[in-house]
Formats: sequence, C-alpha cells, structure tokens
Amino acid sequence: MTLRRFEIQDIDQTVLLWLEELRTKTIAAMQDELTVGTKSDVRDLVTNVDRANEKLINQKIRAYDSEAHIVSEEGFGDQQRDMKGHVWFVDPIDGTMNFVKEREEFAIMIALYIDNQPVLGWILDVVNNTVYHGGPEIGVFANQLRLTPPMDESLAQGIVLLSGARLLYGMFGYDHIAKAALGYRVIGAAGPSFIRVIRGQAVGYSSKMMPWDFAAGQVLAKTLGLSVSDIDGQPLDMLSSNIVLVATNRAHRDILALHKS
Amino acid sequence: MTLRRFEIQDIDQTVLLWLEELRTKTIAAMQDELTVGTKSDVRDLVTNVDRANEKLINQKIRAYDSEAHIVSEEGFGDQQRDMKGHVWFVDPIDGTMNFVKEREEFAIMIALYIDNQPVLGWILDVVNNTVYHGGPEIGVFANQLRLTPPMDESLAQGIVLLSGARLLYGMFGYDHIAKAALGYRVIGAAGPSFIRVIRGQAVGYSSKMMPWDFAAGQVLAKTLGLSVSDIDGQPLDMLSSNIVLVATNRAHRDILALHKS
Repeated sequence: MTLRRFEIQDIDQTVLLWLEELRTKTIAAMQDELTVGTKSDVRDLVTNVDRANEKLINQKIRAYDSEAHIVSEEGFGDQQRDMKGHVWFVDPIDGTMNFVKEREEFAIMIALYIDNQPVLGWILDVVNNTVYHGGPEIGVFANQLRLTPPMDESLAQGIVLLSGARLLYGMFGYDHIAKAALGYRVIGAAGPSFIRVIRGQAVGYSSKMMPWDFAAGQVLAKTLGLSVSDIDGQPLDMLSSNIVLVATNRAHRDILALHKS
Repeated sequence: MTLRRFEIQDIDQTVLLWLEELRTKTIAAMQDELTVGTKSDVRDLVTNVDRANEKLINQKIRAYDSEAHIVSEEGFGDQQRDMKGHVWFVDPIDGTMNFVKEREEFAIMIALYIDNQPVLGWILDVVNNTVYHGGPEIGVFANQLRLTPPMDESLAQGIVLLSGARLLYGMFGYDHIAKAALGYRVIGAAGPSFIRVIRGQAVGYSSKMMPWDFAAGQVLAKTLGLSVSDIDGQPLDMLSSNIVLVATNRAHRDILALHKS
C-alpha cells in the first residue's frame, strides 16, 4: 500500500514531535549519573537512557501505527523475519560510548520502511539540536532547512569515515581505503558519520552495522542521490548485519574498485 | 620578569577581543570560495584564510607587545632560536583539512610563554564559538565558565585520540595504544583534540606536532593538572617538532609503559 504525500508529511511531523520529547528527556538524564552496563563485550555499552528511550519510542510507534513491526536495538522490538508491511527501525542511543564518554557525537535514529521500500528516516543530533529527516517523497531536511545533494567528489578528493575497530584489526581492506583518501576520520558512531556524508563533509563512510544503525541513514542518503550498498556493491540486507558503504557515487566506485583489487 | 596577575588578565582579555574579530572574519571568509593550496604534500593544505589570519594576529601581537618574538605556521613569524623573553605561538587555522572539507573541527590557537614558562593559551573553536583560555595564574575557562580538572581515568577507561596518518602507517606504537584504550577516535586536528582532553571527553591525545600545534594546549592542559610530554616522557622542545602526548596522569603512565614495552 502506497502512502500519499500528505500522509508521509503527517508521519514526519509526528515523529519530529516524539524526538523533541526524547531530546528533552535525554538531556535531562545526562544531568544525573548514568547507569552503564555492557553487552557483548566491555566496549559494547548500554545505559538506562538507551533502554528508557527505546521503550518510549516503541510505545509511541505501537500507539500510532497499529500495523507496526519494530526492529530495535535493546530488545523491546519484534522478532522480524521479513520486510512486508510497516517496519520501523529504532536506535534509541546510537554511539553509546560517545554518549557516555564524550557526551556528544551520538544520535537517536528512527526509520520507516513499507514493503521493503524506504519511506522516512530521522537522525537526531541530540547535542546540536538538529534532526536530519525526510525521504524520497518529501526530500531531506536539517530541521526546517532543505538539503541539496552533496558534490560528487572522489575518494582522493575527500575525507572518508571508517570504523576504528575494523581499521585497527586490518579488516575489510579499510587500510587501503584510508590510504587512498585525502584523509580519514574515526567518529565512533553511525548517526554522526551518516550526517557528515549527507552534509558533504565526508565523501564516504563504512562500518559493520546492524539494521537500526543504517536504516535511517540509508533513506536520507539515497534520497540525496548518494550510493548505499554493502562493501561488495550488493543491496543491504535489512534484517541482519552488513558491512555498509555509503558514499558519493564517485567515491563509491573508487572504494568498490579498491575492495575488489 | 614575572607578570602580575592583573597584567595577565589584561593580556587574556586583549587576546579574547582579537579572537572575536578573527572569528567574525573567518566565518565571513567561509561564505566565499576558499583559495586552497598545498605545502609539503597534497594533504598539507593552506588557504587564503590561514595566511590572512596569521598576518592579522602577528600584526596585533607586534603592536601590543614590543618585546614579542613570534613562532607561527605560515611564515610571517620570526626565526626563533631560544625561549628567552616573550615568545608568542600562532596557529591561524589549526586543522586546515577539516576547515576546507568538514567546515568544522578546526581552531585558531595562540599561546604566550615568557622565559620558557607557559603564561597563557587560547584555543578558539570557531564553529561552536567557544574559546578555551587561561594559564597557571588565572585557571582555565571555556568562554566565561571556569573548567575543573577532568577525572583521572586510565587508558582502559577512556577514549584516546590519535593522529590518523601515524596510526595507519604503524608509527610510534599507536596501534598498541589504540588497542589498550576503551576506544580511539581520529579527529584530524590538534586544537579540537586538546579541547576533548581538557574537557575530559578523552583520556589522552598523541600526534607528531609543531610548536604552534601544541603550545596553547600545553598551557591549558598543565594548568588543569594533566600530563604533557613527548612520547618518551621528556619535556617538549618548544622550538621543533615533537611526538606529543597529553593525557590524564593515569593514562599518561599507561601509554608511556606501553611505549617502552
């Protein structure tokens, strides 16, 4: 079922209101001591805020959209086996290590796909109070400001963003990508990295990610004409982890060529 | 000659006014197309703004302090052979690649040393409109807000910031430092990296730097009780390049131990 433009705008405005509330609660929670735990290893952090945010978002989604299936990070979503119908992706705090240690460079991310088609994505840069949002039907905005597609620069002309851990352990040919770029940076979180590519501050970004890490970024990047695929050039599997590559079209070709060689 | 406290406060206020003017001019110049050239290699960028800022700062220093010797990046300073008297350090745009490509994560940095003693340092985060400034006599401030010393966390408890190029080419044992830390980030500029250590967002930072890259950061970090040395634990040579290490006392010990092993 295809949504009409005004329905999509209505969903966008609704989620923007949720994000305003989430931002207020997240900033308030940062004034108190955080409860920090670990998941798969000592570097995989989770806090009381991740959990509280996810509960709140999922509750709002279920109240708003009776057909919602939810794929989310902290375990309050559904066990989703296909992309039929309304599938929402939720990352309640993206970049939890940055959230805990840097107190910046983290995000709250939500995305909506219908029958496997990207409809809307939201990346809230909490500290800078900027939501990057939109989709193919309405375009991409930074708060109220419409974004134009970034320049199509090559890898050698720009900065590439890479997963620090994978670069450090020599995985996925990231060292070759870093050497071929004008420069590389390690940000430590998906949302802030997607934002830089969407704004044209970086020509590309690659990391191994789960669906809630890339679902919103993919909607926004594709809407702006950027290339999104896995590191072999294949479409992303929306229900498992992928080695994601988002880049300008030229940098995307440069990186795929490096990866194959 | 030792300056009195009120004289130091007067110098601080004077330079803060210069930085206000420099910020306005830099933001204005960013609206026009930048003239970008290269220096030692294709990744060593310089722009019209670097040169204009340095000329303006050096002019102001010479008009204000008749005893000034100036050590600055773009060639408008003096050929300085010792640290006697009033030595000013000037980095007119620190992080020129970030300035050109990211349009954030760059700084304007100034420092004053007298008879080899750190007196005052200023790091202006241009985009966020925050000046980190002060010295041993007056303390350290973010604009008007007095900063307290960051927690003394170990390397394993925190994020370490490293020079991307040196890490990529396996230099200075940076891979061991990155692996021992909770996480690492690559920011691509000295000023923004020093700011993160001073604010307690990172437990340490290391890169090969010229004096104008570390002079201001050293004043502020030492004033806050952080450790600043070269990677062998020796005091920095203020008139040549150094592999600089700034860190909490615990992370400093952790990194020196790794470096020696």
